[in-house]
Amino acid sequence: MSSGNSVVKSLTEGEVVDAIARRLVSHPSFGEYLDYPDDARDIIPRGPRILFSMDAYTISSLRLPWRSLRDVGWAAFTGPISDVVSKGGVPLVSMLALGIPGEWRITDLLELVEGFREASSHYGVRILGGDTNNSSEAWIAISVIGFTSAKIPPRRMGLKPGDVVIATGVYGAMGFISKHGINEAIRHQWIIEATKKPTARVEVAYVIASQYRAITASMDVSDGLGYTLSEISKLSKCGVLIKQPPRVHREIVELCRDNMDCILDYSLNGGEEYGVVLGVKQDLLNHVVRELEYYEVDYSIIGNAVEAEPGVYFNGKKLNIGRYDQFKGWITKMQ
Amino acid sequence: MSSGNSVVKSLTEGEVVDAIARRLVSHPSFGEYLDYPDDARDIIPRGPRILFSMDAYTISSLRLPWRSLRDVGWAAFTGPISDVVSKGGVPLVSMLALGIPGEWRITDLLELVEGFREASSHYGVRILGGDTNNSSEAWIAISVIGFTSAKIPPRRMGLKPGDVVIATGVYGAMGFISKHGINEAIRHQWIIEATKKPTARVEVAYVIASQYRAITASMDVSDGLGYTLSEISKLSKCGVLIKQPPRVHREIVELCRDNMDCILDYSLNGGEEYGVVLGVKQDLLNHVVRELEYYEVDYSIIGNAVEAEPGVYFNGKKLNIGRYDQFKGWITKMQ
Repeated sequence: MSSGNSVVKSLTEGEVVDAIARRLVSHPSFGEYLDYPDDARDIIPRGPRILFSMDAYTISSLRLPWRSLRDVGWAAFTGPISDVVSKGGVPLVSMLALGIPGEWRITDLLELVEGFREASSHYGVRILGGDTNNSSEAWIAISVIGFTSAKIPPRRMGLKPGDVVIATGVYGAMGFISKHGINEAIRHQWIIEATKKPTARVEVAYVIASQYRAITASMDVSDGLGYTLSEISKLSKCGVLIKQPPRVHREIVELCRDNMDCILDYSLNGGEEYGVVLGVKQDLLNHVVRELEYYEVDYSIIGNAVEAEPGVYFNGKKLNIGRYDQFKGWITKMQ
Repeated sequence: MSSGNSVVKSLTEGEVVDAIARRLVSHPSFGEYLDYPDDARDIIPRGPRILFSMDAYTISSLRLPWRSLRDVGWAAFTGPISDVVSKGGVPLVSMLALGIPGEWRITDLLELVEGFREASSHYGVRILGGDTNNSSEAWIAISVIGFTSAKIPPRRMGLKPGDVVIATGVYGAMGFISKHGINEAIRHQWIIEATKKPTARVEVAYVIASQYRAITASMDVSDGLGYTLSEISKLSKCGVLIKQPPRVHREIVELCRDNMDCILDYSLNGGEEYGVVLGVKQDLLNHVVRELEYYEVDYSIIGNAVEAEPGVYFNGKKLNIGRYDQFKGWITKMQ
């Protein structure tokens, strides 16, 4: 295959698909028979319950100036993995569909593909196949299958007054970007490092699967911690009272000193931190905490569910939580 | 939600997703807990082997002048189902991702959604969730999970000289379009009817699953019967000798009279007929045929695998098979 400055449309569809498949597609594992270029793949169930997720992205929406296409591939792959993890599933295999403009350079396509390969290897999630399309706008769709031993995987709703609220993950970098803008953010190396390749912790799935009796609600943080908290609150019909900040980057601690309003401002807005917010029964909290520590997952006990109008509360006030809307841009949620 | 001439970007992302989900997303079935808007869905394995497929489309590539967006939704949904069926899998659940231009009318989006709903209901394949994106070009990605009891699901390769070659499905309408063009085709009502909503026969999965010992190769017909035959031939490293035509529309029989070259010309080119080409062991042929007849699947025994250079042969000649290439348009394959 030619490369350099050659563009994708200089290749046939078969050559494009082969180039991608050769780099990404995992061959049959134990007990499997189908392989590329078969139209479907076969896998043997690895647990009593299948978890299934799908995420898709217009590539331009994943681009930060400091993200290469390789980072974009990594970031895209992380989304559906985080979805499976937040429901207690250990992600196992994936399928990947791409829309590629014919004018794209082949080297750009291969860089994106390298990001998928790298993420697939990091998460131990095999890529089994997918589909490639010619599209004027570049896009990615990824579907993931995982398995869980949880008899009852946690929903977004289910939080009850008295439950403890835990947030895993480290916050503040994407919040800095949404507060100060890209031009200011790009001057801070720590922000670039923290947001280049958003990463989910698969170990959280082990904790949820083994402690599902303790966990009343769970949702990952893809659109901002504040949005996740307000969504759990709304669906569970109770308030979330914040008492402690989530884990934030050291630079946010330095910037805010001990000002909790400042820390929350940076940590509740943002997105793609891919932590998980867990509602946990008070009397089983120590089991969950012990496991999170065993797996060295960053977490913080940020507060409690309370009997109140749905919303996120701090210091006697209900917070106003914004969210990025794909059709409208940044909007502030009126509750 | 407003509709009429309103465009998608007049809604928030949440409203768009809710409108789609309300019409499409299936609620938990027996033994399941997760539901919209959870990030992943849980299902219980329904067979010893999972089959997993994913297809994606730039919507403009699915448009024939007589296909409504509802037909497009149906056609898109049929692709990944056909992939699972051709490997002996009974498709059970799906996820669906969409890229929607903000300028699309809401009524157009709902018409597309109605096509998914209709196909989901026809095939008995539940839609469990998915993702929605703002995109300048409209696209669809669909992922399907099915199950099979086949100990060894059939690959594309595996055909051996002496094996019988069966093609299920009815051919000729898409071949007419690729031969005479849209402007001529649109004058024939039978072509419009035959191509408006391409349909796969799920019953073929039952036949493959129960007769997998008899079936040496299998591939569905999404890019033309000729392409499927030449792909099986190439991967299996033997020739396919055509002796009888596949089932064709009555109008093709009338058009071609008894001219077999003419019938093959119309039936080998085309696409989206969603039949399946099966390689079958000679001594087990009657088992496969009996089941195809039991399920009233249209089929024809079109020929045999032969020891020869890979390719599709008829009447002592190797046929030249074309294929639509997404990046190049129609190309003729040089073998």
